[in-house]
Amino acid sequence: MPLDLTASAADITRAICDIPSESGSEAHLADLIEESIRGLAHLEVIREGNTIVARTHLGRAQRVAIAGHIDTVPINGNVPTRDVEVDGVPMIWGRGTVDMKAGVAVQLKLAAELVEPAVDITWMWYDNEEVEAARNGLKLLAESRPDLFQADFAILGEPSNGEVEGGCNGTLRAVVRTTGVRAHSARAWIGENAIHRAAPILARLAEYRPREIAVDGLDYREGLNAVRISGGIAGNVIPDLCEVEVNYRFAPSRSAAAAEAHVRNVFVGFDVEITDVAEGARPGLDAPIAQEFVTAVGATPKPKYGWTDVARFSALGIPAVNYGPGDPHLAHHDEERVPIAQITATEDGLRSWLRGA
Amino acid sequence: MPLDLTASAADITRAICDIPSESGSEAHLADLIEESIRGLAHLEVIREGNTIVARTHLGRAQRVAIAGHIDTVPINGNVPTRDVEVDGVPMIWGRGTVDMKAGVAVQLKLAAELVEPAVDITWMWYDNEEVEAARNGLKLLAESRPDLFQADFAILGEPSNGEVEGGCNGTLRAVVRTTGVRAHSARAWIGENAIHRAAPILARLAEYRPREIAVDGLDYREGLNAVRISGGIAGNVIPDLCEVEVNYRFAPSRSAAAAEAHVRNVFVGFDVEITDVAEGARPGLDAPIAQEFVTAVGATPKPKYGWTDVARFSALGIPAVNYGPGDPHLAHHDEERVPIAQITATEDGLRSWLRGA
Repeated sequence: MPLDLTASAADITRAICDIPSESGSEAHLADLIEESIRGLAHLEVIREGNTIVARTHLGRAQRVAIAGHIDTVPINGNVPTRDVEVDGVPMIWGRGTVDMKAGVAVQLKLAAELVEPAVDITWMWYDNEEVEAARNGLKLLAESRPDLFQADFAILGEPSNGEVEGGCNGTLRAVVRTTGVRAHSARAWIGENAIHRAAPILARLAEYRPREIAVDGLDYREGLNAVRISGGIAGNVIPDLCEVEVNYRFAPSRSAAAAEAHVRNVFVGFDVEITDVAEGARPGLDAPIAQEFVTAVGATPKPKYGWTDVARFSALGIPAVNYGPGDPHLAHHDEERVPIAQITATEDGLRSWLRGA
Repeated sequence: MPLDLTASAADITRAICDIPSESGSEAHLADLIEESIRGLAHLEVIREGNTIVARTHLGRAQRVAIAGHIDTVPINGNVPTRDVEVDGVPMIWGRGTVDMKAGVAVQLKLAAELVEPAVDITWMWYDNEEVEAARNGLKLLAESRPDLFQADFAILGEPSNGEVEGGCNGTLRAVVRTTGVRAHSARAWIGENAIHRAAPILARLAEYRPREIAVDGLDYREGLNAVRISGGIAGNVIPDLCEVEVNYRFAPSRSAAAAEAHVRNVFVGFDVEITDVAEGARPGLDAPIAQEFVTAVGATPKPKYGWTDVARFSALGIPAVNYGPGDPHLAHHDEERVPIAQITATEDGLRSWLRGA
């Protein structure tokens, strides 16, 4: 059944959440999205894989990119959606409601409705956001069609409780290693216990006090955490290797090199291998168009802690914010659910700004 | 290819080390052992799983049990065996050479050769010694066929550098656990990091100073070590569980209950689950047959640190010692290797005592 983009954003949310689209399986939903907008005269539609771009060509002074990913993390008994009420608040419950099909629903509705927005708009709906960066649809599009990324401002519909969340923290992963000498545990004094040697690593993590750093007026809270630890071969062998994987979330004012130096400094004396790093994005809220947007939707900007694709726009010099319905704390949660009022509020905020900007 | 038990004990060592038999995968080696002795008229052969028993029925005044396990810890690039020379000493290098296929090779050779020993002999080759006690072939045999454990003395071929090592330390395994609260690592402050909470566990292990305790004239050295650590679910999730498996080796004068109390005391404040405990064995060298054996092989008794299955014989009231080629310090070591002269010396010592006792 084709998508009815004249329905309410809540109904569109229900409809697209009930079409499973776990990362790697977005084709069917992408087909329906393409079908629903392909016939609209005010939009040029471009498809690359399961990523769909639709844009106006009205010759406006400014162009805004508005993007959302159409994949979800794995369904865990939470599809189809259902309507629930939590503390008197009507909500749509189910996988994708928060991250981020309600945001996509608002975008789809407005893409069809806004025939003559005050700014030119490039809508982008992309796949594979919830998996490794190499598959990310927005990243691949930026590589294959950089021309589509000409914009003065970008809005990502990631859940932000209907507030404007600016920028995002960077993220770095590293493995901190200790080595030792294997021996039979009955004669431990012959060996060197790599797990015991990791004691200071955990002590430093336990004692670590993350910083809070103001960037362009927003306070970013950092974090340094062990996300995995492993060591040991058998129940009677003194282990010769212990690995602690740490994840450092760092303020967007820090470069990747500075983040790496910080982690190496915390674990000085240990073997540190950086396995993955992505810089954050400055909030970019000093750009006049960003300030107009924040004022128009009546929001108080907040920092975004999680890394999001706003960083891709930011890296291209495009100020970008997160603005979408849903509580980010419930993203990926099995009890994922979005207040219907937030869907409507986001829709109203976005519509009024796009009409009047 | 069947085993040739008329070959030298060194050749038999090479042959059976080159047949991988990590714990749980002993079937093929057990088949070959059974096949090589099944046809010998002087031996009654009994097979239970991958444990093989062969015994004489000569009506001798005394019966000696002589046992060895046929499994090894995991191979780590150290099979097939090769001949090496270290400081001018010819050796066979590779997994199992020390723990304890050289000892098994000596036993197999003598089992085939000694048609009319001076004592009746019950040979036992068993599986799963290197893993949890519940799977131990000798333990299972003692449960299913206690009748096979009638003996006046027991010799276990565990590596003892060709010396007689009396008794053994006890061994206890426990899991020390921390729990926390899962959260996205971008918002770590929502969660509680179970790995960070494990810092004091590793600190106590690193600071622990083991005791040395005299039992029946032999000095037993204790040890408390982490043998495994694990925690973490994904690279962006604050872990809610961390488990440290510890192994406590305790002097044979301590009871299992005292050992457990000691471990709980070291990790007071943490969740401690005792998963496995086996008391040690007092040296047992005051038995006349044990003294005769020590005199015959010309050895000075030493304490055995590692828990060995001598404790199973000891628990049945059978004095038992360890007597085998190989340096126990090299057991489980990636550079595991046995001096060929020790294989020959052990073979000679055992043969002369069994012939003349």
